[in-house]
Amino acid sequence: MNNTSGRSLIPKNIEHLKPYVAGKTIAEVADIYKPEKIAKLASNENRLGCSPKVKGAIDEVFKEIQDYPDPVARKLRAAIAERNNVEDENVIIAAGSESIISMLCKTFFLNKENAITASATFVGFFVQIGVRGVHLKKIPVTDDYRYDIKAIVNAIDDQTKMVYIANPNNPTGTYITKDEFEWMMKEVPEDILVVMDEAYHEYTGNVEDYPQVLDYDYDNIITLRTFSKAYGLAGLRVGYGIAHKKVIRNMMKTKLTFEPTALGQAAALAAYNDQDHLRKSIEVVEKAKERLYEFFDEQDVDYVKSVSNSVMMVFPTEEEAINFNQKMLEKGVILRRINAFGLPNCIRITVGMPEEMQHFEDTFLEVTKN
Amino acid sequence: MNNTSGRSLIPKNIEHLKPYVAGKTIAEVADIYKPEKIAKLASNENRLGCSPKVKGAIDEVFKEIQDYPDPVARKLRAAIAERNNVEDENVIIAAGSESIISMLCKTFFLNKENAITASATFVGFFVQIGVRGVHLKKIPVTDDYRYDIKAIVNAIDDQTKMVYIANPNNPTGTYITKDEFEWMMKEVPEDILVVMDEAYHEYTGNVEDYPQVLDYDYDNIITLRTFSKAYGLAGLRVGYGIAHKKVIRNMMKTKLTFEPTALGQAAALAAYNDQDHLRKSIEVVEKAKERLYEFFDEQDVDYVKSVSNSVMMVFPTEEEAINFNQKMLEKGVILRRINAFGLPNCIRITVGMPEEMQHFEDTFLEVTKN
Repeated sequence: MNNTSGRSLIPKNIEHLKPYVAGKTIAEVADIYKPEKIAKLASNENRLGCSPKVKGAIDEVFKEIQDYPDPVARKLRAAIAERNNVEDENVIIAAGSESIISMLCKTFFLNKENAITASATFVGFFVQIGVRGVHLKKIPVTDDYRYDIKAIVNAIDDQTKMVYIANPNNPTGTYITKDEFEWMMKEVPEDILVVMDEAYHEYTGNVEDYPQVLDYDYDNIITLRTFSKAYGLAGLRVGYGIAHKKVIRNMMKTKLTFEPTALGQAAALAAYNDQDHLRKSIEVVEKAKERLYEFFDEQDVDYVKSVSNSVMMVFPTEEEAINFNQKMLEKGVILRRINAFGLPNCIRITVGMPEEMQHFEDTFLEVTKN
Repeated sequence: MNNTSGRSLIPKNIEHLKPYVAGKTIAEVADIYKPEKIAKLASNENRLGCSPKVKGAIDEVFKEIQDYPDPVARKLRAAIAERNNVEDENVIIAAGSESIISMLCKTFFLNKENAITASATFVGFFVQIGVRGVHLKKIPVTDDYRYDIKAIVNAIDDQTKMVYIANPNNPTGTYITKDEFEWMMKEVPEDILVVMDEAYHEYTGNVEDYPQVLDYDYDNIITLRTFSKAYGLAGLRVGYGIAHKKVIRNMMKTKLTFEPTALGQAAALAAYNDQDHLRKSIEVVEKAKERLYEFFDEQDVDYVKSVSNSVMMVFPTEEEAINFNQKMLEKGVILRRINAFGLPNCIRITVGMPEEMQHFEDTFLEVTKN
């Protein structure tokens, strides 16, 4: 039987999507440029590494690696519920925040609905919305690279189903305040889901006017958190969402049955129970940020102060950002261009260990003198 | 602002989906029934366990657990491509076959299209199609529990976009033959994707008329395989698909960026390179099946012969299947009711290690005498 319909195998909306272009791994940079040393400051990972308690937990659960994981991650879910004063049924655990965002896209949209977020935010949300094929309204960030909450609320129409706020925002490191959050929640209709992506929540402890979303009682909010950042487990893909039971119950229907992995569940629980290590990880970031701000001030660099574990450099042009990024890469400092995040003239720097930051500074001086 | 639209937060199509009900884990069965010993013969896992080479591979990659995984799993992909005589770009690696099925649903359907499969097959396909919200035509299996390929082809209409064949089929253990496959591919239009889910492929080595799908050159087929079954890595969620580059390239756009995990990639590669252990795993299954067939023949049990690692018992009524399953569970033999797979009067038994099969037989005799 031949194809007589004129239809093609690949739908046009998918054919038109841009493929994800992966950043370079340490191994690739080593292969290509052969630098003396490498600092991977590109993906906002925890450069201190994960809790020393994790390895034992993995070794223990490895004995059952031939068995499917617990589909609801009971133990980890109970620990998260307890610490956040919610019930188990308010928590969903999945293979990273990206998987939860994909699940949100599968669960909540009808075809002609739309979502709203900032022009400069987590690229993973842009990608998953594109895959779902609903319209995304990208509202320009303010001059100081913050979410323009008023403009976002003004953009809501009858077909709006979701508002996505990364708080702190990635890649900018800025945040929406308690006042902004409270005002927004008064304005957003209750049939619209507000997604608060708090991947960098653990770094905001000292920020007085950062909103503690879980202290409020809204049925139409989901708070996303992850073990990929401050907990140092990006390689194992574990994230979670906290929301009203009705929201979670329906997301459970679209979740992949056996995510996250058995090793991921065990590792995340061990990391979650080691709050000492978490504090150390946060201290590393605080110290590195202070040092980097001083360095940038001395060097007269344009940058944005951050409440997460990365700092954004602002260049006058995209070309200058590309050049700087490439020169740093060749010397073994892997940074992140964030054109896909909506900021072509900016570079995001993950702050890391003292020796990595030294490598960054030395290379910066070398590269900018030429 | 109040909700004045009459719309609800949760879309109706999702609200109407049935939630996944997880089977009982070993820990739960131990807690509830306190049996002297437990045989988990419910999820077609490899009861011998994974290759002894896996642990070392995990320990090695654990050192980088704070870093995101390689988004395309380069090393594993190259190994799979090489062994199957295809190029790297013909292979996609993801968090289990279920994730690939979800990806297929996200990639290939327009809203009014439909999919076709058998009435009795892998429940994961039913679930993901339900989530995508397209129509699924379930074609009754034949009297001997096989795919009715002729009826499936006859059910194709202008809106059909996908035909899903699990081969060997799960839960029946039956298979479509080379002749059936070749006839089907002549009849299916080339703008329809044929999904050949070969999760149990490794067990078919001795089956002469089993079709070797990768030996054909069709642009509209994807072959799915997994590390969750014969390779004994269900806890780590790794599966792969092999297809035309155009199919893979577009699926890469809907794949979650960082699936599968870094540990999963390393473990799967180590397992894939240990073909000796794979052979041992297959032998365990072959011997256990022979023994079980003999036992069932002696006991005059109605069952279906299988080319995978499970055997299906057929009861006269659903009630008898439920009763048998419950009695076995209470004695520590965890089997799988397959009502969700479309066969309410059948029970699926994973064949396992000699001591587990002994436990099954002893408990069967105890339970059926009363």
